[in-house]
Order: sequence, then C-alpha cells, then structure tokens
Amino acid sequence: MNRPRPVEYADASGEVRAVFDDIKAERQIDDVNNFWKYLAGDAALLKRTWETQKAVLAPGALDRRVKEMIYLAVSATNGCSYGIACHTALARKAGMTDAMFGELMGVIGMANQTNRLADGFRLPIDEIFNE
Amino acid sequence: MNRPRPVEYADASGEVRAVFDDIKAERQIDDVNNFWKYLAGDAALLKRTWETQKAVLAPGALDRRVKEMIYLAVSATNGCSYGIACHTALARKAGMTDAMFGELMGVIGMANQTNRLADGFRLPIDEIFNE
Amino acid sequence: MNRPRPVEYADASGEVRAVFDDIKAERQIDDVNNFWKYLAGDAALLKRTWETQKAVLAPGALDRRVKEMIYLAVSATNGCSYGIACHTALARKAGMTDAMFGELMGVIGMANQTNRLADGFRLPIDEIFNE
Amino acid sequence: MNRPRPVEYADASGEVRAVFDDIKAERQIDDVNNFWKYLAGDAALLKRTWETQKAVLAPGALDRRVKEMIYLAVSATNGCSYGIACHTALARKAGMTDAMFGELMGVIGMANQTNRLADGFRLPIDEIFNE
Amino acid sequence: MNRPRPVEYADASGEVRAVFDDIKAERQIDDVNNFWKYLAGDAALLKRTWETQKAVLAPGALDRRVKEMIYLAVSATNGCSYGIACHTALARKAGMTDAMFGELMGVIGMANQTNRLADGFRLPIDEIFNE
Amino acid sequence: MNRPRPVEYADASGEVRAVFDDIKAERQIDDVNNFWKYLAGDAALLKRTWETQKAVLAPGALDRRVKEMIYLAVSATNGCSYGIACHTALARKAGMTDAMFGELMGVIGMANQTNRLADGFRLPIDEIFNE
Repeated sequence: MNRPRPVEYADASGEVRAVFDDIKAERQIDDVNNFWKYLAGDAALLKRTWETQKAVLAPGALDRRVKEMIYLAVSATNGCSYGIACHTALARKAGMTDAMFGELMGVIGMANQTNRLADGFRLPIDEIFNE
Repeated sequence: MNRPRPVEYADASGEVRAVFDDIKAERQIDDVNNFWKYLAGDAALLKRTWETQKAVLAPGALDRRVKEMIYLAVSATNGCSYGIACHTALARKAGMTDAMFGELMGVIGMANQTNRLADGFRLPIDEIFNE
Repeated sequence: MNRPRPVEYADASGEVRAVFDDIKAERQIDDVNNFWKYLAGDAALLKRTWETQKAVLAPGALDRRVKEMIYLAVSATNGCSYGIACHTALARKAGMTDAMFGELMGVIGMANQTNRLADGFRLPIDEIFNE
Repeated sequence: MNRPRPVEYADASGEVRAVFDDIKAERQIDDVNNFWKYLAGDAALLKRTWETQKAVLAPGALDRRVKEMIYLAVSATNGCSYGIACHTALARKAGMTDAMFGELMGVIGMANQTNRLADGFRLPIDEIFNE
Repeated sequence: MNRPRPVEYADASGEVRAVFDDIKAERQIDDVNNFWKYLAGDAALLKRTWETQKAVLAPGALDRRVKEMIYLAVSATNGCSYGIACHTALARKAGMTDAMFGELMGVIGMANQTNRLADGFRLPIDEIFNE
Repeated sequence: MNRPRPVEYADASGEVRAVFDDIKAERQIDDVNNFWKYLAGDAALLKRTWETQKAVLAPGALDRRVKEMIYLAVSATNGCSYGIACHTALARKAGMTDAMFGELMGVIGMANQTNRLADGFRLPIDEIFNE
C-alpha cells in the first residue's frame, strides 16, 4: 500500500470516533473532511492535531474570520492546495466577503513579492525595527 | 561591487526623491527604511513597488491592522527576516497587542504544520470545497 | 510543444538506454518511473542526476529506509506531490511501517510549525549551538 | 516594543515555570534555550508547543536520532537558521556522527534538487505510486 | 461559493474589459488565460497586476526570453504548477529551445540543492561577497 | 562540536585538495569560498557537488551570465543568504550590469507574487499550456 488511506467513522476505533464526534460538534457538520480521516491512521497524531487546531482557531484577541484569513495566507504562500481549498471555505463560512478575499489576495501577493526583493537586495534590518 | 548599496535622499534623483517624499508623508516618518533605499537603485522598480504597496495596504474591506498581520504571516512563512522585522513594527504601530501577536503566531505555526501534513498524506480535496 | 514529453525506452538513444538499464538493474524494476523518462529529454542531466541519486541513496552510515524517510520529509516540506508519491513508495519498499509513517508525519508537521515560530519570534541563536 | 523579548525563569509566571521545569527535566539541561523563552510570551502557545514536541520526539517506532535528523532535514529545507542550529546540536547529542551528517546533507541536497526538477518537468504521477 | 470563479469577457465590466483588451493586444492572443479571468474578480488587483507584469516583462537590459526563463525558474522553485505551465509556454513562444530548457532545469536543480546545503552547513558569507 | 567546521587546504586530504585545485583553476581564484570548505567535511559530497556544478554552469545553449542570473533567481526565491551573496558576485563577474540586476529583481518579485496569486485563486491550467 503506497498511498495513505482515509479512516471512515464506521471503521474507526473508539479513540478516533471520539475525536471525529468532537470535530462534528464543534464545526456543526455531518461528517469530518478528508484531513481528519487521513490523520486518523495515527490516532495520537489525530488527537494532538485537533486539540491544537481547536485551541488556535477559537475566538480570542482575534476573531475567527481574521484567523481563517491568516490560515489562508499561509496556505497560499506554501502553495498547499488542500489548505487553500479548506480554509477558503472556512473563511467564507466565517464571513469573508468577495471584497475581503480580493484584498487578502492583494496583500498575499505583495508580501511574497517584497519578501524576495528584501532577500535579493540583501537588506540590513533598520535599527528601529530592533527596538 | 558585489553587494547592492542603498540610495540616500541627498544622492537621489528627482524621480526617486518624489517617491521617498510620498512614503514619508503617507507613513508620517522622517526617513524611509532600507527597503526603499535599496530598491531606489532601479527607479522604475521603486516607483511600481511603492504604488502597489500603498494601494494594497490602504484600509478597505480589511483594516490596516489585519493587513499588516497577514503581511507578517506571509513573511514568517517565507522565513524573510527583513519582512518579519518590518511588518512586526508596522503591525504594532497599527495596534497589534501582545495577545494578538501570540494568537497570530499560533495560527501561523498551526497552518504551516497542517499544510505539510496535508501534502504528506496526499489528501484529495473534499467535494464540498469545490462548490 | 509546451509540455515536456517522456522518452520511452524504445525511442531512446544508446546513452539514455544505458542509464535506464542501470536504474532497472539497481532497483530491480521492469520499467523506470516517469521522473527518469522526462529527464531523458536531456541525456547529460539524466545521467548526472541518476549517478548522484544512486550514490546518495546507497546504504552507508545511514540505511536505505532512513534515507528514504528523509527524502520524504524534504518532499513534504516542499509540497512536491511527485516526490511525496515516489518516496512514500520507496520508503515502504525499504520497510517503513504504518507506525513509522505516522511518527514521520508527526515530526515533519512539528518541525514546520516550530521553524516558522522561530522565524516569527526573531530568535537569536543560543551560544551553545555555535560551539 | 517592536522585537519580541524572551521571558527568563526569574520573571516567569507559575504556568510558564512549570513548562520550563519539565523541559529541563526531560532534556537534562540547566536552562531552556531561546525558543522556549520567546514562546513564553504566550503561555498557552508555550505549553501546547512543548507538549506536542515532547510527544513527537519521544522514541517509538523511530528512535530519537532518526527523528532529530528528520527535524534537521525539514529545517534545512525551510532555510530556518534557528531550527538548523538547534536540531544539529540535538542530533549530535543523540548520536549523529560526522559520516551520518554528511550523508544526511547529501540526501537533503538531492531531494531538493529532484523535487524542483519533478515540478519543472510537470511530471504525471506513475500509477504504481497510487496503489 | 467556496471556489473562486473566472470572469469571462462577456460578463466583464468596462474596467475589466479594458485590461483584457490590452492583454490580448500586447500578447497577440484571442482570449486571455485563466490567471487574468480569475483576478478579474477584483478589478483593481487585475489592473495593478497586469500593469506591473507588462512593465516587468518588457524587453530592456534583458530580453524577453531570458525574462521568461527566470520567471520559470522562480515558478519551479515555488512548485507553482500554474506558473510553470504558463511560463514554459511563454518561454517557448519567446524562443526557448529544448537544449535551453534542459540547461535551465539543470541550473534550477543545482541551485535548489546547493541553497539547502549552504543553509544546512550554516555557512558564513565570505568577506569578498560583501564588498 | 555542534557547528560544522571548514576544511582549509593545508589540512585537507589529497582527494579534497584535488577538488580545491580544480575549482581554483576553473574559476581563476586563489582560494575556494566557504561553500567548498564546509562541504569538504564529506569528500564524496564535495566531489559530486563540484562535478555537477561545473557541468551545469559551463556555457552551452545558455551563456554563463544568464545561468548565474537564474541561479540568483532561485536563491532569492529560497531566501538563501549565502546563495544570493555568492551568485550575485558570480553574476557580476560574468557581466551582469546594474540595469540587468534591477530587471532581474523585478522579474523575481513579480513571479513570486503571481505564483501565490495563482495558487490562492486555485487556477485550473489552460488547455493550451498542456499541448
């Protein structure tokens, strides 16, 4: 078996089902998405990853919509097609409008451009940024 | 000359000075940071980059603070030390608190983790994300 | 012709066939995988790349299984879908179990997370690491 | 304050001290390295990150030395200078010899080369890798 | 709507049509490629991106063919499948031969290899490179 | 010893000296740069890497200046400070002018921007690029 396989709820251990149940309750969905089904091949990895994601995305000083847009910015920068697809959907669900999406893409594109210019020009960091 | 050199205001052409003046007025600062001084070696590149950055970071559907945090998320994901230093400072100036910074780092770390898990597990994209 | 095309054995030059034969003998397979068929468009590139890969993956201080897992870790970090698919298969062939794969993914995910936190927090390197 | 600051043990809250104590006990060191001192600015992030790292790096199907070399492979691929410095030291501590380090670098270099060739040549994934 | 949608000419606003017309005239093509149709969801982003691309790719001290090969080198390094596909076609159109493509891939692969070796070995920059 | 150490000519084995001599003759320099001194810790890695680099950078369908600019484009995209410093110097030596450097940076910045936009917008590849 070369390619990892998903674990469906019906075939899952009790430990995996408990995580799946928590994801479904938290996100108010009927079935978990592929990310969780594949990670379920390693129950400890599944549990740790979900606990961290739940904590990280909970509203706090930043609201859920901003957090999902940051998640999308990282995913686009990494060129991760799954992360882009998943967190575009989650950001939409959290209220990201077409106008917000356009501006988000504008910032992502600009930051990727200037990051590489900064590296290419071998910029020394200004003293004021080290204070 | 192997290493690019910065262009200081006193030595700049009129075209470069006009851009420097606009940056200083827009950001209410006394001198431009190194990024602009180095790009000034190519006046057309300097002008284009500044015009785009000004447009991209202007408040719109997203406010300046959110935009700067997205900029920082991209810079950290790219491991660009200059971009991280610069946009941490700009995000602070736009009101990013310690708590926001901690949550931002939490999301950046998590997204980088799950992006690589998604790739490593060769996840097919769920149909619902393609709607 | 926009898209590169594979070179099949039947159409290959003697120089390319010699490399294909060596790959098939070394890996005990009936046909080479797409990576080699596409590189064969440039016979010098094909030969150099194969010679290096053969040397690098030969058992030495590290065994083949560990080397394939390292290869997979790099491929997942780069988000290279071909490298992930190929070296998951090669690592499996070299004895990677489900448990090893799960732990490998756990380390890859964690390292990608902490790398970006280290950059984002602008960490100075501890003196002890420079000894 | 533009640049994040480390939290020293003497200034740390009880929650942060408990994590620092656990790191010192687990790794048998007198003081934690900068990574943990900086993360301590967000106690929840510190605690989550340490708990995950402890679980991920614990010996299991893969031993600690292999795990540290994988960590180093990811860090080098990301160009993260802190991660490279830290996990070179930890891999050395776990028994990585000069010969292992040389072979590790050989695999990392090769994988980064072939990943980009695979992308550049637009390789279709062989059917056998999808089984 | 989770997935972004393209804007076709027939449905486009006057502002978007003007950009599409300019792209078609400049590149002497009958229809714009998907990149522009998707960006058209944000007319300001479309216009800015096209204006910059037109300026950047115009022949100057470097000719169009060299510029397209550099674009392809960046796209392969980023693992961006769209950028690779698009700029392979544009480089071909600008005269890139099979031999040039092979040598280009050779340099891209080598640079990606040595970049990660340089990082992994923690190389100090030679004084001569700072002059 | 946590940090890798350079191997100086005086302390090098015959195998390493032979490679150093070839580099010095080929590049017409009095001493090799740090990259080679550090790789010399693994003589086989040193020899393989140099042989490949010599072959890859030799003038062919592309001249040396173009190859060095492509090398620099990859290095800037990877944010590899050593690669950027070294190949800026080598490109200068091969005739890269200030104007070429400015245009090169313009293309690198633009490509990094549009790569991430292409990924973020989830672009399907146009049929024409697959021909």
